[in-house]
Amino acid sequence: MKRSVLVPLAASLLAISAASSGYEWQALPDKAVAPADNPPTAKKIELGKQLFFDPRFSSTGTVSCNSCHNLMTGGDDSRSTSMGVHGLAGPRNAPTVWNSAFHSVQFWDGRAATLEEQAKGPVVAGVEMGMNSLEDALARVRQIPGYVEQFKAVFGGDDPVNAENAAKAVGAYERTLITPGSPYDRYVKGNASALTPQQVRGMKTFDELGCTACHRGPAFNGPEMPGGKGFFISFPFHTSEYVKTYNLRDDEGRFLVTQNEADRHKFRVPTLRNIALTAPYFHNGKVKTLEEAVRVMAPSQLNKNLLDEQARDVAAFLDALTGPFPEQTMPRLPATIGYTILD
Amino acid sequence: MKRSVLVPLAASLLAISAASSGYEWQALPDKAVAPADNPPTAKKIELGKQLFFDPRFSSTGTVSCNSCHNLMTGGDDSRSTSMGVHGLAGPRNAPTVWNSAFHSVQFWDGRAATLEEQAKGPVVAGVEMGMNSLEDALARVRQIPGYVEQFKAVFGGDDPVNAENAAKAVGAYERTLITPGSPYDRYVKGNASALTPQQVRGMKTFDELGCTACHRGPAFNGPEMPGGKGFFISFPFHTSEYVKTYNLRDDEGRFLVTQNEADRHKFRVPTLRNIALTAPYFHNGKVKTLEEAVRVMAPSQLNKNLLDEQARDVAAFLDALTGPFPEQTMPRLPATIGYTILD
Repeated sequence: MKRSVLVPLAASLLAISAASSGYEWQALPDKAVAPADNPPTAKKIELGKQLFFDPRFSSTGTVSCNSCHNLMTGGDDSRSTSMGVHGLAGPRNAPTVWNSAFHSVQFWDGRAATLEEQAKGPVVAGVEMGMNSLEDALARVRQIPGYVEQFKAVFGGDDPVNAENAAKAVGAYERTLITPGSPYDRYVKGNASALTPQQVRGMKTFDELGCTACHRGPAFNGPEMPGGKGFFISFPFHTSEYVKTYNLRDDEGRFLVTQNEADRHKFRVPTLRNIALTAPYFHNGKVKTLEEAVRVMAPSQLNKNLLDEQARDVAAFLDALTGPFPEQTMPRLPATIGYTILD
Repeated sequence: MKRSVLVPLAASLLAISAASSGYEWQALPDKAVAPADNPPTAKKIELGKQLFFDPRFSSTGTVSCNSCHNLMTGGDDSRSTSMGVHGLAGPRNAPTVWNSAFHSVQFWDGRAATLEEQAKGPVVAGVEMGMNSLEDALARVRQIPGYVEQFKAVFGGDDPVNAENAAKAVGAYERTLITPGSPYDRYVKGNASALTPQQVRGMKTFDELGCTACHRGPAFNGPEMPGGKGFFISFPFHTSEYVKTYNLRDDEGRFLVTQNEADRHKFRVPTLRNIALTAPYFHNGKVKTLEEAVRVMAPSQLNKNLLDEQARDVAAFLDALTGPFPEQTMPRLPATIGYTILD
């Protein structure tokens, strides 16, 4: 993995003040902190990478984590809503896996507290990887000797092939999928020429409008939350013409998880890192361009309307949150010599 | 790209004689020869790699060349028959892309003379990538600035985004996907310990049975053919119990292309390189294991029946035709900044 940012971790905690509001812009840390029960090791990360790219743990053998969270792009699939096995599409837009390590909770509705918990979901989602059960997926893992060996080497024990360990490996890999060193990061660390004048204008507008009320912190996805808590906001908060145009209130959001009236239409605030690469936008993927997404947000969340120039400037600023992407070597997926585990 | 074989090309043309028949075993060349009208360059290969991995040129945005010809595995998809857009499956087993550069012609029925011609097929096949036309796919390419720039840099001209050039780029990349340096290659170059005793026995049996009549040459896919000619054989040639068990005569093979009676049930002889990684087997993928495939071949093609031990030995020998696989760095797919080209 290449990192273009060589400053020590501490530097990324330094913050600079924007002229107007005193908002403290923060660079992305060079590392994502791992939970105490899942310390990263090179072998665990490599195992997680193989699992992430392996389509054999979907019912048809055609869908891997990378199918919808494509690491060769923005960590998503460019589609409104993702398409899993048998061409079935789910109801929501695939969030990027890049920097998901910095999320308070996982999924649009925050139904998983950790990357590890998240990793177990899509395997058994009917419209995603479509396995009948995690046990069925694990039965496939056990038929692939190279996986069994690696689970033993990484986790020890007699029968370490289980969902907890698989999820730990995937989570450990995902914590390496971070993109410090964007033009924005270089700018807030003191490189005044890292942003274009338009991007600097957009950055100021972004703060002055109040976007930083929610899209704050190093990943622009909210304040640091106490362990396990998610940072949720109603979307759309205000009513505007866009609600109808883009069906923004069709999805009840976190309410579907908690059945708590206060959670109706609440969503976890998504990261804006690499947002320029993850069109189309919002939980339902109905908005096709970043500029239009910016235009939708202002009245929906801040009860403001933007001039075209403001929308363009903010979109230009958001483009400064892109990359750089650590180079990925393609894994060799453990082989089955002379047989297939599909069918 | 790493190559573990550093001997000059000439060495790979040396051949050694097996004890029994005088058959000359050949190592795989270190390079695949490019056609005169498509000389490889680093930039062309890199462009071809991006196109190979890009799912945006399928109707749903979910299927790339790599979906069915997975370079993280044996260059295929572990399925009986491949699954394209909307979960549709075609009638035939995906041939491996590894060493496809060494085929006389492309596709099971040889309907494409070159890699370049082959590359244009799956994009518009309804059960594969499902685009309505190559022009539709090219219209998508033209919406991605990073591709347009690369086509210009590689091919020159005002409007170089066309199917011929795209196919040339993909073909140039595919010619890098070769696996010289397998245990078998090392053995025929003089490393007597590169094969196990069982593999050496299997190698001898393979020749004595007559498998080398068709599975000959460096890629075990037939003799060198004059330009554009394919090497086709009837399969199954003899009738056996297996014909019915595995529906071996349901597919009329090359007859479907030529309507020539002599081509009924004829197929291009496939490479045996990396065959241990490409289960299930044959044009219809009905045979699940390599050992069973060997058992099927002997009566079907040679009118012989194998002892279990012979089948096991031959399968062990075939496993010596695996890898090594040149390391692949994941491409970054050219971005669309703030918009998607999918619906």
